Amino acid sequence: MSTESKQVTLALIQAKADSDPATNLQATLSKVEQSAADGANIVCTQELFATEYFCQSEDHDNFHLAESIPGATTEAFQRLAKRCGIVIIVSLFEKRSAGLYHNSAAVIDADGSLLGIYRKMHIPDDPLYHEKFYFTPGDLGFRAWDTRFGKIGVLICWDQWYPEAARLTAMQGAELLFYPTAIGWHPSEKEKYGEQQRDAWQTIQRSHAVANGCFVASVNRVGHETPVGGDGIEFWGGSFVAGTSGEILSQAGLDESVLLLEVDLGIVDTTRTHWPFLRDRRIDAYSGLTSE
Amino acid sequence: MSTESKQVTLALIQAKADSDPATNLQATLSKVEQSAADGANIVCTQELFATEYFCQSEDHDNFHLAESIPGATTEAFQRLAKRCGIVIIVSLFEKRSAGLYHNSAAVIDADGSLLGIYRKMHIPDDPLYHEKFYFTPGDLGFRAWDTRFGKIGVLICWDQWYPEAARLTAMQGAELLFYPTAIGWHPSEKEKYGEQQRDAWQTIQRSHAVANGCFVASVNRVGHETPVGGDGIEFWGGSFVAGTSGEILSQAGLDESVLLLEVDLGIVDTTRTHWPFLRDRRIDAYSGLTSE
Repeated sequence: MSTESKQVTLALIQAKADSDPATNLQATLSKVEQSAADGANIVCTQELFATEYFCQSEDHDNFHLAESIPGATTEAFQRLAKRCGIVIIVSLFEKRSAGLYHNSAAVIDADGSLLGIYRKMHIPDDPLYHEKFYFTPGDLGFRAWDTRFGKIGVLICWDQWYPEAARLTAMQGAELLFYPTAIGWHPSEKEKYGEQQRDAWQTIQRSHAVANGCFVASVNRVGHETPVGGDGIEFWGGSFVAGTSGEILSQAGLDESVLLLEVDLGIVDTTRTHWPFLRDRRIDAYSGLTSE
Repeated sequence: MSTESKQVTLALIQAKADSDPATNLQATLSKVEQSAADGANIVCTQELFATEYFCQSEDHDNFHLAESIPGATTEAFQRLAKRCGIVIIVSLFEKRSAGLYHNSAAVIDADGSLLGIYRKMHIPDDPLYHEKFYFTPGDLGFRAWDTRFGKIGVLICWDQWYPEAARLTAMQGAELLFYPTAIGWHPSEKEKYGEQQRDAWQTIQRSHAVANGCFVASVNRVGHETPVGGDGIEFWGGSFVAGTSGEILSQAGLDESVLLLEVDLGIVDTTRTHWPFLRDRRIDAYSGLTSE
């Protein structure tokens, strides 16, 4: 257990969204700044933090919520990252060009530079989660970025359910996978299926830590949003960080909170030699994964 | 929730191995027969049920424990399967030819026919788990078999840690994945890491059920085996069946037991439309999975 220690402090911003994007932006900038004051090195927002989860309906007006990357929001976070010397992952509704939109995350390094963007690769479409109406599936593939505080990957919400996404990101070198997320209960299903649904969501993400010997940090929103009436969605919070064997290191509840946690990325190397799964992959036998 | 019901009763034989293979064979045949009398339709043995876990050392004498498939053992189970009208999965040390051995499982249908074999694709090699000395990695790929009681896949132990294996087997049509297993604690690590190790093992397998909307049945051995002296391995039992959202439906403890459980394979279709992960896979972006 002599691997070099690489201590890094994470902050996960779990929040309730206001109907006003400017309010959300200001509140999130403040929380990120406070996290930095509290010792955070890498901060991650929840999915589409700037808005309510507008995908509950298919409404062309919502395309006005999108913005370019770089743009006003990423520039605000870039200034903050530089001033505080922290890495920030910002989840945004990206307008790439007229008629072409993505569900994206900007990765900003501690010097304020925009290292790159990840565009959500797997797009869901379910009752109240009409994402295929808004978002073109990502075109940039699975990536990892060498930030000042560690090599990280970013995946977004529905990507959580795909071991392929975690594997490919880890194979790019990511020691830590961030998942900005917006998932919750249909109120009518909560009593019967709620606990099982949240447990499945946590289990699949913990399994990515296990399979790849890396850390996983998942950042979910809270609050009961009913922007188009009806029962709406009760976002289930539960943001968490899992260690390299899938163990829960810290977990938020159902309230707004900033989950602050120090982890040692040096453990990744130790875990991967003690549980050498990557060694024994059968790349000669996996071609079916790309054909159906 | 109007999918056609496909009820099937599973039996998982979790046992302590005797040093005498003939004793293990007789005991296992008896337990399988009793399971059938108790209502089982598909029965699965633990990994290499006929012997102690001989891979604790690299010893050429152990190659004498292997046998051909078909052979005396599979024929005994074929007769039993036909007499009882049950499907049986038998995990065996297979001698394919001189100098060529596999860690295999025979899949026997309820009419006594040998449907096929699975040869363990991912071979571990760790202290006290010297499997690369004995077993050539499987050459037959990932498979599913249409048995009288459902379409099933079989994977073996170390395969458990690979989401790729579960995915490819599920994509062959398997509604239920069986994992004959032999995993336990190094006694010196048990106090500090034991609980976390067993939890990681359960989590990764539950995640295969989640990712693929299928059932998972894992059959582990129990007992403290020290065939070559030293501290040996304490096999941690804990055989379990997980439902299609990864929920634990039934679980054994640390004692010998036969886990008998009725499940409805019809749920697979319902789960996969309500959690449509297979719909959104990005086969255009997964080529990296086969190249490193």
